[in-house]
Amino acid sequence: MSAGTTVSRTDTTFRLTELRKLMAVHNVDVYIVPSEDAHQSEYIAPVDARRAFISGFTGSAGCAVITSSKASLSTDGRYFLQAEQELDSNWELLKQGLPEVPTWQEWALREAEGGKNIGVDACLISAAQAKSLAEKLKNRKGGELIGMDLNLVDIVWGEKQPERPKELLRILGMEFAGKSFADKLAEIRKDIEKNKGCGLIVSMLDEIAWLFNLRGNDIPYNPVFFSYAFITPTEAILYIDEDKITEKIREGLGEDVTIKPYNAIFDDIKAFGEVTATSDKKLLVTSSVSWALTKSVDETKISTIKAPIEAAKAVKNETEVEGMRKSHIRDGAAQIQYFAWLEKVLARGDIYDEVSAADKLEEFRKEKEHFVGLSFPTISSAGSNGAIIHYQPEKNTCARVELNKIYLCDSGAQFLDGTTDSTRTLHYGSPTEEEKESYTLVLKGHIAVARAVFPKGSSGFILDILARQHLWRAGLDYRHGTGHGVGSFLNVHEGPIGIGTRMQYNEVPLEVGMFISNEPGYYEDGKYGIRIENVVLVAEKKTPNNFGDKKYYGFETVTMVPMCKRLIDATMLDEDEKKWLNEYHSEVYEKTKSFFKADEYTLEWLRRETAPV
Amino acid sequence: MSAGTTVSRTDTTFRLTELRKLMAVHNVDVYIVPSEDAHQSEYIAPVDARRAFISGFTGSAGCAVITSSKASLSTDGRYFLQAEQELDSNWELLKQGLPEVPTWQEWALREAEGGKNIGVDACLISAAQAKSLAEKLKNRKGGELIGMDLNLVDIVWGEKQPERPKELLRILGMEFAGKSFADKLAEIRKDIEKNKGCGLIVSMLDEIAWLFNLRGNDIPYNPVFFSYAFITPTEAILYIDEDKITEKIREGLGEDVTIKPYNAIFDDIKAFGEVTATSDKKLLVTSSVSWALTKSVDETKISTIKAPIEAAKAVKNETEVEGMRKSHIRDGAAQIQYFAWLEKVLARGDIYDEVSAADKLEEFRKEKEHFVGLSFPTISSAGSNGAIIHYQPEKNTCARVELNKIYLCDSGAQFLDGTTDSTRTLHYGSPTEEEKESYTLVLKGHIAVARAVFPKGSSGFILDILARQHLWRAGLDYRHGTGHGVGSFLNVHEGPIGIGTRMQYNEVPLEVGMFISNEPGYYEDGKYGIRIENVVLVAEKKTPNNFGDKKYYGFETVTMVPMCKRLIDATMLDEDEKKWLNEYHSEVYEKTKSFFKADEYTLEWLRRETAPV
Repeated sequence: MSAGTTVSRTDTTFRLTELRKLMAVHNVDVYIVPSEDAHQSEYIAPVDARRAFISGFTGSAGCAVITSSKASLSTDGRYFLQAEQELDSNWELLKQGLPEVPTWQEWALREAEGGKNIGVDACLISAAQAKSLAEKLKNRKGGELIGMDLNLVDIVWGEKQPERPKELLRILGMEFAGKSFADKLAEIRKDIEKNKGCGLIVSMLDEIAWLFNLRGNDIPYNPVFFSYAFITPTEAILYIDEDKITEKIREGLGEDVTIKPYNAIFDDIKAFGEVTATSDKKLLVTSSVSWALTKSVDETKISTIKAPIEAAKAVKNETEVEGMRKSHIRDGAAQIQYFAWLEKVLARGDIYDEVSAADKLEEFRKEKEHFVGLSFPTISSAGSNGAIIHYQPEKNTCARVELNKIYLCDSGAQFLDGTTDSTRTLHYGSPTEEEKESYTLVLKGHIAVARAVFPKGSSGFILDILARQHLWRAGLDYRHGTGHGVGSFLNVHEGPIGIGTRMQYNEVPLEVGMFISNEPGYYEDGKYGIRIENVVLVAEKKTPNNFGDKKYYGFETVTMVPMCKRLIDATMLDEDEKKWLNEYHSEVYEKTKSFFKADEYTLEWLRRETAPV
Repeated sequence: MSAGTTVSRTDTTFRLTELRKLMAVHNVDVYIVPSEDAHQSEYIAPVDARRAFISGFTGSAGCAVITSSKASLSTDGRYFLQAEQELDSNWELLKQGLPEVPTWQEWALREAEGGKNIGVDACLISAAQAKSLAEKLKNRKGGELIGMDLNLVDIVWGEKQPERPKELLRILGMEFAGKSFADKLAEIRKDIEKNKGCGLIVSMLDEIAWLFNLRGNDIPYNPVFFSYAFITPTEAILYIDEDKITEKIREGLGEDVTIKPYNAIFDDIKAFGEVTATSDKKLLVTSSVSWALTKSVDETKISTIKAPIEAAKAVKNETEVEGMRKSHIRDGAAQIQYFAWLEKVLARGDIYDEVSAADKLEEFRKEKEHFVGLSFPTISSAGSNGAIIHYQPEKNTCARVELNKIYLCDSGAQFLDGTTDSTRTLHYGSPTEEEKESYTLVLKGHIAVARAVFPKGSSGFILDILARQHLWRAGLDYRHGTGHGVGSFLNVHEGPIGIGTRMQYNEVPLEVGMFISNEPGYYEDGKYGIRIENVVLVAEKKTPNNFGDKKYYGFETVTMVPMCKRLIDATMLDEDEKKWLNEYHSEVYEKTKSFFKADEYTLEWLRRETAPV
């Protein structure tokens, strides 16, 4: 850690004592606190940050498990350092993916051996997870898995728990959405019919926002709103607090949509389950639907399908594709202004820390057309902080940005016409040979993904090695995936696609119109972090042949920000890689230069940074 | 097809008529004829070639399904052309892997709808396959799946069916096996204990040969012998016809081994199942164990585990590794003699066809120390025959090898100290630009695999794209895997590892000491085939760093035969690829030159072919 940065550790002793009293009252021996909300959201509203409240660990992924005498927090490689810094001595850290380290499920099951009960808020765990856990609990001779209607952490939190947000919705016009709600609904109903369903429960917030062409502001950085939807061949019910909806929105949705209160879905599903008990059609759910939603329905009447809305949403229509391209150019212009400005102020000795620098980046973004907000908290990290993969600088305590230290900036924004996400790693002084070598190895992997050509039907799973191959040859690697799907004015992390080693990525082929990030990295603990991230669009590639009439796909890079010249060791690049880099830089220059007509300094900076290697 | 080559099509009408009569007698509506024998062998003895007999299709993989009026043959991309040439009009070809084409299971289930019975010889299908098929049959409202004790094709075949071979076994000495039977047995017993088993059924012939350090000659090209084994914590029973065993072998095995007749295992397992019915330990089987073997045991008493012998056998000990290296050098010398000789005789106008040429290759191999036989039928294919991936030339009808056509030769041998398998694609005249480009793209993929570095724990699944990436960029591909495990004086195709898109390859990490083939290809139907195959050894690589203390692995190529200079377009190779090629050629020269001390012509040819590009 750099000087001036303090570790923020929460004392959780009192909270745990209170929680354990409640566990005893409710006959719960092992209590699970997942990081997700009732919609399996990755990013959550402050009201739902129960796992952070009880454990003190504020990273976006992880699960806490508490017994009468122990407490464990399981998280993945992105967060090992952060968790070590944030957890107090009440907690045992379970480093996911390391050999011999149990998953939170295994840890909980071990603690429950000998007839002990495991409790969990049934809204915060999926039916499939609950079923699997209950079965294992039985095999291990544990007690019951109790799916609770109330949340014990909420009771401990009490009055200090933030309010559930109630912001007004906004309609996303056809000029941005590109496809009407009616057309989307018709397609989803075809999916319901194809899957022999009598209805589909939709609980993922971005799926609901996409389907209804509505956006909200209930979760920071994610333009979604708390709601459920239930779609049948004849009905479309949106469960949402009515005071979030204006008359205009209600009119816009038309007569096909029924609005009901947020929590009314539980009774509706129960009633629906009873009515359709004799039908040969099934209630369709996806793997993210909570146990609480399906508990009331006979298991044999439920069919879990691959999320049809997630699949449809992942393939952007022409309007969305064009919006993504344009918003990434505007976003690139803001980053170029920022990185050029940062060089100037650092060179003249001005003092900026990670937060005050990032504030300037936000200013540049705010000036751009269609800007709504950031798409995630900016990871502005200097020197060794860059090695904390999902580092979030805090005002007053964060490190200074310095001329002679690597600076990693992972940032993105929400525009009405698109969501952006990119990372640049910069050096404004004289990087060491080691830093240049590491940067160039990461860049070679980035270019290998950007240039990849693969037959239709290929998944992101098989592309992962392209990003890592050069690092591996040097005995290096990084402990995160290489790419995630990106929404269009929606969540910056979006399923079902990804580039990485998760098996689920191998189940979904990349389709033309999908956007995905390309972000290899390398992290030298205690020294620096490197990540190079662009958003790319899956596109058909013209190949000299078309063996097997398969069609061949590749990527079109839409992020428009130069790589860091000072960090590139050009002797490590082959001709194809240099060609890609020079063509990319030329495109960045051409597409963004018009933003700097009245800003000779930035234009000159851009010209220098995009000149051929 | 080249002139002079005739299609060999068998008229199956009478055979099918006879079979259908028997099906009616046994109340079977749909009859399955798998290609495997009772040991799920890939290569089979002539006596077990039931699927070839009934269908006329002689390829090594495929399944026949016969109803009262239809017959279908399902096979994979390697065999599409061959099957089209061999099947008569009684047969429908199901091209596996193409869209909309049903698997043989789906085809059989569809035919069985409406209460019809499916029959199969219970020795020829695994318990897992049978269970899955029976369940689906029930869901589809078909009749019963009948696991038959007799084989209907054998009855149709009658007296003309070949005899079951009864060749004497040979002991594989410690100088070749490297590990004693007693040591292997002790390790397997540990596996049995770890899996809470009371016994392990072993039915794969190469597993039995490996465990007992015995070799046989019952299946052409595979040094195995018909047998079963049953291993318990206290017993080791080898089920084999006693007249295959000499007194010396019996003595060598020691008192720990009981010899019983081949078919005695069925009664033994039945009795064992009854005796252990009250034990809390289970009978261990692997996924390849036949339904016939386990039918008599209560399903809840059986546990299917990953084959422990297959896993142990895949990692070669030091003696085996050294034997594989040495046998590949001798085998390489034979191929070098052959390819040099072929150039000479073709250049002077001698006439050789695919078979007579390959006979010469076998002559060169036979002269080499420890030679036992070929490891598979040599694929000696000229011009367009090379596009038939598993082509087998036939005497008298096969094509001529010509100076100005691509010649593909995929061959291998069994030596006492190792099994070899390699493919070279050659041109002795003036290849076209297209041929050179295709060859060089395949070579680039081959080199990418050969040079790969990857962290310990990586599977062959993730390496597949390395072999295909350059072909894909040109819109080209090949319809087979990139690599298979290779035995040590055992089967040339060996589990559980592989490089390719089969999901099972992703479940097994590559370990130091494993041998695998590296064989990308490209096939232009009707014109030519290209394949470049070396056997490689998984080895630890020294990398400049060791991120995560993971250890990094790569390959050591053990096949020692030059690539074809005339077919390489050196301008398409980058510096790393040229370096690999030149270093490989230099190694080939150094390791094989001593074989040609008295053969100046071959030495000169080798010198020319291994000179740096």
